[in-house]
Amino acid sequence: MSSIWGDRLKISVFGESHSEGIGVVIDGFPAGVEINFKEVERFMARRAPAGQAYSTKRKEPDVPQVVSGILNGVTCGTPICCVIQNTDTRSKDYENIALKPRPGHADYTGFVRYHGYNDPRGGGHFSGRLTAPLVFAGALCKQYLAGKGITVGAHIYELGGVADTPFDDTAISSKLLRALWKKPLPVNDDAKGEQMLAVIEQKRMEGDSVGGVVECAAIGLPAGLGSPIFGSVEGELSSLLFGIPAAKGVEFGAGFAAARMTGSEHNDSFIIKDGAVKTKTNRHGGILGGITSGMPLVFRAAFKPTPSISQEQQTVDLAEMKPAAIVINGRHDPCVVPRAVPCVEAAAAVALTNLYLQK
Amino acid sequence: MSSIWGDRLKISVFGESHSEGIGVVIDGFPAGVEINFKEVERFMARRAPAGQAYSTKRKEPDVPQVVSGILNGVTCGTPICCVIQNTDTRSKDYENIALKPRPGHADYTGFVRYHGYNDPRGGGHFSGRLTAPLVFAGALCKQYLAGKGITVGAHIYELGGVADTPFDDTAISSKLLRALWKKPLPVNDDAKGEQMLAVIEQKRMEGDSVGGVVECAAIGLPAGLGSPIFGSVEGELSSLLFGIPAAKGVEFGAGFAAARMTGSEHNDSFIIKDGAVKTKTNRHGGILGGITSGMPLVFRAAFKPTPSISQEQQTVDLAEMKPAAIVINGRHDPCVVPRAVPCVEAAAAVALTNLYLQK
Amino acid sequence: MSSIWGDRLKISVFGESHSEGIGVVIDGFPAGVEINFKEVERFMARRAPAGQAYSTKRKEPDVPQVVSGILNGVTCGTPICCVIQNTDTRSKDYENIALKPRPGHADYTGFVRYHGYNDPRGGGHFSGRLTAPLVFAGALCKQYLAGKGITVGAHIYELGGVADTPFDDTAISSKLLRALWKKPLPVNDDAKGEQMLAVIEQKRMEGDSVGGVVECAAIGLPAGLGSPIFGSVEGELSSLLFGIPAAKGVEFGAGFAAARMTGSEHNDSFIIKDGAVKTKTNRHGGILGGITSGMPLVFRAAFKPTPSISQEQQTVDLAEMKPAAIVINGRHDPCVVPRAVPCVEAAAAVALTNLYLQK
Amino acid sequence: MSSIWGDRLKISVFGESHSEGIGVVIDGFPAGVEINFKEVERFMARRAPAGQAYSTKRKEPDVPQVVSGILNGVTCGTPICCVIQNTDTRSKDYENIALKPRPGHADYTGFVRYHGYNDPRGGGHFSGRLTAPLVFAGALCKQYLAGKGITVGAHIYELGGVADTPFDDTAISSKLLRALWKKPLPVNDDAKGEQMLAVIEQKRMEGDSVGGVVECAAIGLPAGLGSPIFGSVEGELSSLLFGIPAAKGVEFGAGFAAARMTGSEHNDSFIIKDGAVKTKTNRHGGILGGITSGMPLVFRAAFKPTPSISQEQQTVDLAEMKPAAIVINGRHDPCVVPRAVPCVEAAAAVALTNLYLQK
Repeated sequence: MSSIWGDRLKISVFGESHSEGIGVVIDGFPAGVEINFKEVERFMARRAPAGQAYSTKRKEPDVPQVVSGILNGVTCGTPICCVIQNTDTRSKDYENIALKPRPGHADYTGFVRYHGYNDPRGGGHFSGRLTAPLVFAGALCKQYLAGKGITVGAHIYELGGVADTPFDDTAISSKLLRALWKKPLPVNDDAKGEQMLAVIEQKRMEGDSVGGVVECAAIGLPAGLGSPIFGSVEGELSSLLFGIPAAKGVEFGAGFAAARMTGSEHNDSFIIKDGAVKTKTNRHGGILGGITSGMPLVFRAAFKPTPSISQEQQTVDLAEMKPAAIVINGRHDPCVVPRAVPCVEAAAAVALTNLYLQK
Repeated sequence: MSSIWGDRLKISVFGESHSEGIGVVIDGFPAGVEINFKEVERFMARRAPAGQAYSTKRKEPDVPQVVSGILNGVTCGTPICCVIQNTDTRSKDYENIALKPRPGHADYTGFVRYHGYNDPRGGGHFSGRLTAPLVFAGALCKQYLAGKGITVGAHIYELGGVADTPFDDTAISSKLLRALWKKPLPVNDDAKGEQMLAVIEQKRMEGDSVGGVVECAAIGLPAGLGSPIFGSVEGELSSLLFGIPAAKGVEFGAGFAAARMTGSEHNDSFIIKDGAVKTKTNRHGGILGGITSGMPLVFRAAFKPTPSISQEQQTVDLAEMKPAAIVINGRHDPCVVPRAVPCVEAAAAVALTNLYLQK
Repeated sequence: MSSIWGDRLKISVFGESHSEGIGVVIDGFPAGVEINFKEVERFMARRAPAGQAYSTKRKEPDVPQVVSGILNGVTCGTPICCVIQNTDTRSKDYENIALKPRPGHADYTGFVRYHGYNDPRGGGHFSGRLTAPLVFAGALCKQYLAGKGITVGAHIYELGGVADTPFDDTAISSKLLRALWKKPLPVNDDAKGEQMLAVIEQKRMEGDSVGGVVECAAIGLPAGLGSPIFGSVEGELSSLLFGIPAAKGVEFGAGFAAARMTGSEHNDSFIIKDGAVKTKTNRHGGILGGITSGMPLVFRAAFKPTPSISQEQQTVDLAEMKPAAIVINGRHDPCVVPRAVPCVEAAAAVALTNLYLQK
Repeated sequence: MSSIWGDRLKISVFGESHSEGIGVVIDGFPAGVEINFKEVERFMARRAPAGQAYSTKRKEPDVPQVVSGILNGVTCGTPICCVIQNTDTRSKDYENIALKPRPGHADYTGFVRYHGYNDPRGGGHFSGRLTAPLVFAGALCKQYLAGKGITVGAHIYELGGVADTPFDDTAISSKLLRALWKKPLPVNDDAKGEQMLAVIEQKRMEGDSVGGVVECAAIGLPAGLGSPIFGSVEGELSSLLFGIPAAKGVEFGAGFAAARMTGSEHNDSFIIKDGAVKTKTNRHGGILGGITSGMPLVFRAAFKPTPSISQEQQTVDLAEMKPAAIVINGRHDPCVVPRAVPCVEAAAAVALTNLYLQK
């Protein structure tokens, strides 16, 4: 019902695209974790618009300002508040959207939900910019998980119809995931990455946009995290993932493809490997009965194409209740998927930290 | 972290497959709703194993016993507790699974999660049987929503590779959804239903199983339900849907297909229809920015094939930490999808009631 | 907002005084705890009406029926559901209260809150009988805490103006607390107990009732449980204690008396004792900054006199909106305080288990 | 378990006494409420140290900086974040307290709770300064409630043994409560206020401190707010009130005094007044069965004397585990009670707004 998530670790996200700032309160983060802020900034930079062809022209340094909860670089155990100032806001770009809702955006539903009082500028609280606080929280959680031997990483599984090589779900290494962190376009097959960039550039020229799928993995997870029924790893993760604007689908392990398999194809045999219980294959994506099995956690999230396109679109004038045309002039990504990668990683890191703390 | 879900409406599910009973406490259900128990039983019968070729041979009347919260057929506003006795339990069928976990089941992860103390009989708290209380809660919620002009219904979208005609997402009627409630196999195209049954029967003969996809719709929803970020309709729904065992993926509107569309293809133009704001198409599945748009809500959930198959499978002996073979003797469905349909409807009804009460 | 409490340990209480049954779902109780049911019954018997002069004449065995979550006497880690049947219900005693609310009862506020749909019989969900499920949950928690070296006990601090010897807050032993568990009237000074019984008997003869105060202690608590601000031990405990009908005040350590002390009188000096940090005195009642200090936790809860008295009282007829007189014929305690003692212990045990599991 | 409170309205408090700032995220506050910031500042000024004899010499303007959720002075419905900079921090005053915990403070319990990583400066997250964000949230809630015809106000009931005239609990007017808002020392009897100031001054001269009791009332509440069992008005209010440092007891209506009354004395007869159901007396303090009755809500909270006194005190050196003496040099109130008055009002306003939104 709110912009607060979690039980052991709680995150409370606030801000609008053009308000004074945006940010997050992270409540329940363990005490005594030394934070590498260089690493935090590197992770946040992956989400920030940075002048790439595929990203919005809005340039914001997105410097996270720690207001509380961290003393001399070490977490205190008390709530961590981070505020990111909104500095480069060109509010007049959005003057016409309040009463002429943009197709594919939350302008209309936000108007109804808040009886017209929500901040419409730049999408307000619905803006993709609100993923910056999530990524900050994820950056801290990634460092916490690293201390437990857990690594989270992701790649673009598919973009504009171009498919990357998927993860080999039984043989994902920390090295592989960390290498993806550093790639400008995180893909397993760089040639496919080039094709993706070409598709994005083409759509940008056409004033259009494309969607895609992000595949994320977490390795080093102990067996036994999560709970049956409503406390499942899938439930926890998906409730956070759908907090990323533009996410329209989530699947775990074989996912929707499992629906076309037989039981004998889908079931993963248990084996003993290095003295531990593992499975031979990993169609289950590291989760059985809502609980981690100790195999790599693998899931995918689908993102719709950016709704902001420069082509003229049909909408309605809410004031006069008549049809209207709209052309969106703002600065927008022709594809959010590259920037969604760290958001998905962040959501995974936050959810897994919460699950880890439930132990 | 638990078997409790919700904020305005809370449901607390309890029970193991072979414990004395299973059930649910429904907290926050509005006072003054007259419950049609015939309708509740009909809905629950759709989930209950009933001797169909595709369902387990375990026959349980699944009579919901109302312990509290309903007086003379009308809800009191106080917590409603319903207990369903477990009567036909053949515990010895499961004697060997405690230490030889069944592939695809939660036996191993449950063992680790609960340090060996969980009830392994019939899958314990992880059993698909635990969807019966969810369906009871959903039955009440469906009646509550009906009083608000909202109808929830679902069909088998795909089973064992056979695809049904999908919903026409701009023209779903209450009549259509209610007709699906009454079909023994809820499909839009009965010929496809016959093919699905043939696939199930074939897999049963082969000692194997199949998965599938359920498509669910809700119509009559007002615009403005749900919230941005973590209170999204998608987040609420998915956190419940992944509480149904065997669910491996969830998608809204165009879902994963949206990832292959361009913005100009995916965006739904706003129009005025009958004096109200609607969209011309419904790729957004009735949700924009996490909030209902007033268009039909449409989503799909993928279910893996039943993990219980009669073929011999490879596992490990946890006591001796060595490889072992297992043959599962119990009574099982070769396909859970037909019985998953009311579970998905129930999850939707519970989530939507919670969202409605948040208004 | 509901009859569900807690975060790590959650309890969901259901039932009305005259519904088919009452009970509780305990979610998050640790796996592997062996339950001594004899002990559970003994504890519940302390709350149950048992024919004493001071208790209602309603006799119910209050046998807790475990529906789920405990296998062969050991907790499974999954939700524990317990149902207590309502067997000895004389509903006609309450026929006239629905529209002529009893002074001091929740008849009127329940009627307004639930728009007239709540179950008025015996007070419905507001009945003191609803403490039986809390006491069941507390019985399990007491056993869990005992395994951690923590003992919870309570005595009647004051009843009808008769004061018992208070706890010596720096020297409470497990032996002392356990001895109180076994006393028919739990007081430190049995002579005072005799006087209390005399007051109760006198009030019973007069058709009147009396209130009192329960003092509760928990020893063996490690330092460091609880959290600052809204997660304080005081906040957690009081939110449960006010769930006991008739509770009107809660105080910790010196409590209201602290308001009349100076800082130099109230501050407890830190000392080292047996190699550990302790305080010389214990005006703080074992809590500083919302967190346990390792000193005995000491608090008191005030209970109002039973509102059911046999004297004629003035009320209103809600149907005709005119003044009315009422005489309450049912069976009632002239004093709830003796039976409130195990309720307070139970609330403390539940809250402390939740706090312990937060570590 | 955390610094987050609430269900419909959630507040998430963050900050340490000497961190960059302190603040609050208010999630779920209704859209469209016009905020009078002059009024907010006036309310916050009542809590802020202001050079009075009884307050700390630390002077901070405590300007609340609204980061999000309010546009052109009107609430958006999305989370409101407010940050208050910490400007006048003299951290070296607290250098010695990290390992020599101050009696009566949370230094020791905070150290244990957070394994030595908490920020000890000025009490860190435990500081009374953390009530400023609560008061900001309360200021907004008071304005929301005013729009519903509800007024909250409080006075010093007792301070250092000097008792003010208590509220006449059946005849509290909005005018009376609003007059108290404006008094430098909010008391009903100004002569008693003079005596209180004299006591404070005397204690200040002695290097000592005093405690007291705040009595708070809310009028204009509709009957029917709150819920039975764990959702009671008492439970909601007390869980917030114990979030105010130094609160040691809470009582509703007759409170602890009820424990010495008989039922015939304590029960409040129902009457009809101006066409509505009221009670003749108000021993129940406006709450029956956890639910508002429509009578004035009246409760009291007891505050211990300020633990910071200038006299030498005995403590332990945690590093060397040996006895130590401590003299506290910082700037401190000899009595927190006057500044606790707006905190209690704020807690009441937040709790009542949450309860109101549950309707």
